[in-house]
Amino acid sequence: MAHINVPEGVPGIRSLVMFRPETGKHLYQLAQVLLRDDSPLTQAERELIAAYVSHRNNCMFCRNSHAAAARCLYHEAAPVVDAVFLDMQQAPVSEKLKALLNIAGKVQVSGKAVTAEDIEAARQLGAGDREIHDTVLIAAAFCMFNRYVDGLASFTPTNADEYAEMGKRMVEKGYVLPDRPR
Amino acid sequence: MAHINVPEGVPGIRSLVMFRPETGKHLYQLAQVLLRDDSPLTQAERELIAAYVSHRNNCMFCRNSHAAAARCLYHEAAPVVDAVFLDMQQAPVSEKLKALLNIAGKVQVSGKAVTAEDIEAARQLGAGDREIHDTVLIAAAFCMFNRYVDGLASFTPTNADEYAEMGKRMVEKGYVLPDRPR
Repeated sequence: MAHINVPEGVPGIRSLVMFRPETGKHLYQLAQVLLRDDSPLTQAERELIAAYVSHRNNCMFCRNSHAAAARCLYHEAAPVVDAVFLDMQQAPVSEKLKALLNIAGKVQVSGKAVTAEDIEAARQLGAGDREIHDTVLIAAAFCMFNRYVDGLASFTPTNADEYAEMGKRMVEKGYVLPDRPR
Repeated sequence: MAHINVPEGVPGIRSLVMFRPETGKHLYQLAQVLLRDDSPLTQAERELIAAYVSHRNNCMFCRNSHAAAARCLYHEAAPVVDAVFLDMQQAPVSEKLKALLNIAGKVQVSGKAVTAEDIEAARQLGAGDREIHDTVLIAAAFCMFNRYVDGLASFTPTNADEYAEMGKRMVEKGYVLPDRPR
């Protein structure tokens, strides 16, 4: 049960933004701009970064839902997302994306863990300012979302099909504030 | 020097939201709602929670600027903010606020670190759902802001007077997106 009185059976962050839509509105708009709007990173790459950070933070709700969204967007035959969870450096993604995932992994630990060498390695592989900026902010934002979801013990479904549905909705509809209950 | 090409000499998050106002807008609006708008926690208490989490994340820009804002709001003779940084449990704040700062400190580590006992302790001292919600989301949000600011190595002033000025502006004007440069 969640630590506060949120709508029952509504999973993860959706239950929390229903409790407090005034903050929820800005959280969803941030997710929409970061993960869906204009960026040199594809939507698939951005969802993968979100899922990777959530995986490292052990936040099952965000991990599984953003992994499902990334799978939809990759139209994957080869399981890219699971390979990244298992061993990012061996996963079938570009060297540039590995360098950005490395930066995201550092941000998950601490902002100060990102070194000039990490940034330079990404630049050598073709990443520009916007790729670096978006990677750092996506990783930082999921350090917030993960803590919000788990810090209030919001409902985390365990059924894989439910996450597949969620991922599909996240891809088709984007991040839209759910209606206030009642 | 910052890891990306942001306006020179502009400190911390201000330089980053000038680089990317599309995300910056939502970050500032989130801060405004969380720290300034309606809450059962006073603005001083909320700035103190923000400063405490930033202190624990060793993010000097956010720590010093939100500490300065909290000092303004406490109109303090006794140094509440520094006492909280030194030893939160011995600081001259209410037992209820200590219980909430304890929850914020857990969120700084991980969302999952918050226990039902931490929540129950806060409730026994008079905290309701909204206090608990706002504490968790402020702490989570500063885990994002701290990582954004330090992960991109944005400019961190070292002059105490500069932070005192910043704190005053944050209290008087709130969180308003700075103008795009040029």
